[in-house]
Amino acid sequence: MSKKVKIGNIFIGGGAPVAVQSMMTFRPSDTKNTIKQILALEEAGCDIARFCVRDEADAKAIKTIREKTHIPLVADIHFDYRLAVAAAENGADKIRINPGNIGGEDKIKIVADCLKAHKLPVRVGSNSGSIEKEFLLAYGRSEKALAESALKNAALFEKYGVGDIVVSVKASDVRLTVAAYRYIAARCDYPLHLGVTEAGTLKSGVVKNSIGIGALLLQGIGDTVRVSLSAAPVEEVRAAKLILRSVGLEKDYVELVSCPTCGRCEWDLIPFAEKTEKFVSKFKKPLKIAVMGCVVNGPGEAADADLGIAGGKGFCMLFKKGVPYKKVAYEDVEKEFFKEIENCLRSAD
Amino acid sequence: MSKKVKIGNIFIGGGAPVAVQSMMTFRPSDTKNTIKQILALEEAGCDIARFCVRDEADAKAIKTIREKTHIPLVADIHFDYRLAVAAAENGADKIRINPGNIGGEDKIKIVADCLKAHKLPVRVGSNSGSIEKEFLLAYGRSEKALAESALKNAALFEKYGVGDIVVSVKASDVRLTVAAYRYIAARCDYPLHLGVTEAGTLKSGVVKNSIGIGALLLQGIGDTVRVSLSAAPVEEVRAAKLILRSVGLEKDYVELVSCPTCGRCEWDLIPFAEKTEKFVSKFKKPLKIAVMGCVVNGPGEAADADLGIAGGKGFCMLFKKGVPYKKVAYEDVEKEFFKEIENCLRSAD
Repeated sequence: MSKKVKIGNIFIGGGAPVAVQSMMTFRPSDTKNTIKQILALEEAGCDIARFCVRDEADAKAIKTIREKTHIPLVADIHFDYRLAVAAAENGADKIRINPGNIGGEDKIKIVADCLKAHKLPVRVGSNSGSIEKEFLLAYGRSEKALAESALKNAALFEKYGVGDIVVSVKASDVRLTVAAYRYIAARCDYPLHLGVTEAGTLKSGVVKNSIGIGALLLQGIGDTVRVSLSAAPVEEVRAAKLILRSVGLEKDYVELVSCPTCGRCEWDLIPFAEKTEKFVSKFKKPLKIAVMGCVVNGPGEAADADLGIAGGKGFCMLFKKGVPYKKVAYEDVEKEFFKEIENCLRSAD
Repeated sequence: MSKKVKIGNIFIGGGAPVAVQSMMTFRPSDTKNTIKQILALEEAGCDIARFCVRDEADAKAIKTIREKTHIPLVADIHFDYRLAVAAAENGADKIRINPGNIGGEDKIKIVADCLKAHKLPVRVGSNSGSIEKEFLLAYGRSEKALAESALKNAALFEKYGVGDIVVSVKASDVRLTVAAYRYIAARCDYPLHLGVTEAGTLKSGVVKNSIGIGALLLQGIGDTVRVSLSAAPVEEVRAAKLILRSVGLEKDYVELVSCPTCGRCEWDLIPFAEKTEKFVSKFKKPLKIAVMGCVVNGPGEAADADLGIAGGKGFCMLFKKGVPYKKVAYEDVEKEFFKEIENCLRSAD
């Protein structure tokens, strides 16, 4: 099991729930928009918010942002170690830094001392563009280069007494990402921050992130996840939560299974499945419901659903654990099924 | 390696390219719509089309569909063995059947004889709703029950001389699906048809399918895939192709990596990334391109891209393999970048 690291009011690693994070698209000095974005992400289920800190004004703005938001805040620093110090002093809960572009070990020591003084964790790591030259030369753009480069960065902070370290080894290639995390997971007990970097647009990026992050989580690797998408941050959080649900790491929600329809489908299933998904999204309790195309196969195929509905000719059939129990006319389908969902949720209390 | 099975003019298993399949939403007797749907799926990259065969009229319609389409056709049969025979006689390239609801071994023998006479393969398999009772009682709704039930179905056809068998073990639960395929892959050399069944709507279904199918393909398990979505079949094919690309099983396309943007982003990246993705979708040659937010980190982070563009203040920078080589004014960005993409593709000839 990975080491447990405290970040603000939550933990990463050591068996803590896998935390979802995203990165803000505004600079902290655009305080109003940053706060608005963080609050919206909190609502969507985001556990940690990160933003870049590019100058003093950004660092100072953290104070206000810290006051007006609730989840831990991570300051993302490049090039200037003084901004890491300023971010820590202004209330950041974690620093993400790349020792390779900070300008020497004396600067790392200053940052390390500051982290210790404020009891803050740090994230270090590599992506295919920031592998340290020695490892790139020795191992090429490989999982070993990514992981050894990240471990060297972590060792630098260890050297100056910082032990609360989260590590990432991201690539835009899914196979390389998965291989790098497997490699590093076998060689350290740092909590791991999972992500496929520069994964692309919403459509293709969700697929890449799901495979990469999903395959690792299925294997028990990963303590916090950041889905990376060229899309609004809320889409990253939504995708991350779907990934966690799919691998069984989030249980308090209503799961909707629904069939893909075929020539046996007797009703207009797809819009009803989408409407149902929207309806159940507000409930935070475990329940498995099914929306199926035909009464012949539907109840049997969805026998593991607590509650389901299947289309028939001119009516729909409600069923529980595969057993049909009530016919409902098409025009009453929404009212009846949604009422039954609420009944099931109540009886689970 | 799995056994190689011929289906129409392609192969499944034995090292053949992983085939993408989808299921039609029309009955074959709605011949016009079925043909239209298959042709659209062929265009999207579908390799195999399946449809349900519910009566004689459906079976007879296969003849016309076979004449007007190009990819192998699979007849999905429930309950009535005579429809399997009729489908084979009318030109189906493969039969998908559930021995458990066909009504006894004498019927299986008739289907098996028909398959042998027409040299057709068969798909058998289980999903969480069709596990044979003996295995459900012995092992519960587990990977072992799913896999042993499927293996028993396969053995039935083997008994009557049919060896060209494709097997599936689907569940709507991603973990159960992955576990079942791993279990069965270790115990047989049948080519495996991968899928997460009843995976739900487009949004959540893509995530479930990507994780389940992706994790298995990463491990070398799987010979044909069917993404199951409560959405138009073309979405299933698109998602399947994205999965294959993400795990490196399809290389002849232009891959777009793009950063998720942050407070360092200097331009309106997201719509440009989407426009670029659309532009490159028509090219069938391997090229990696990058659309990045800032000139400071962009070229380095996307150093493995053949060609890239990164935003600066008032201009964009083109780069190749991480090395900037040309400034472009915002208003010329689309024209210049797209021209460079075409140049790169030409020079790869």
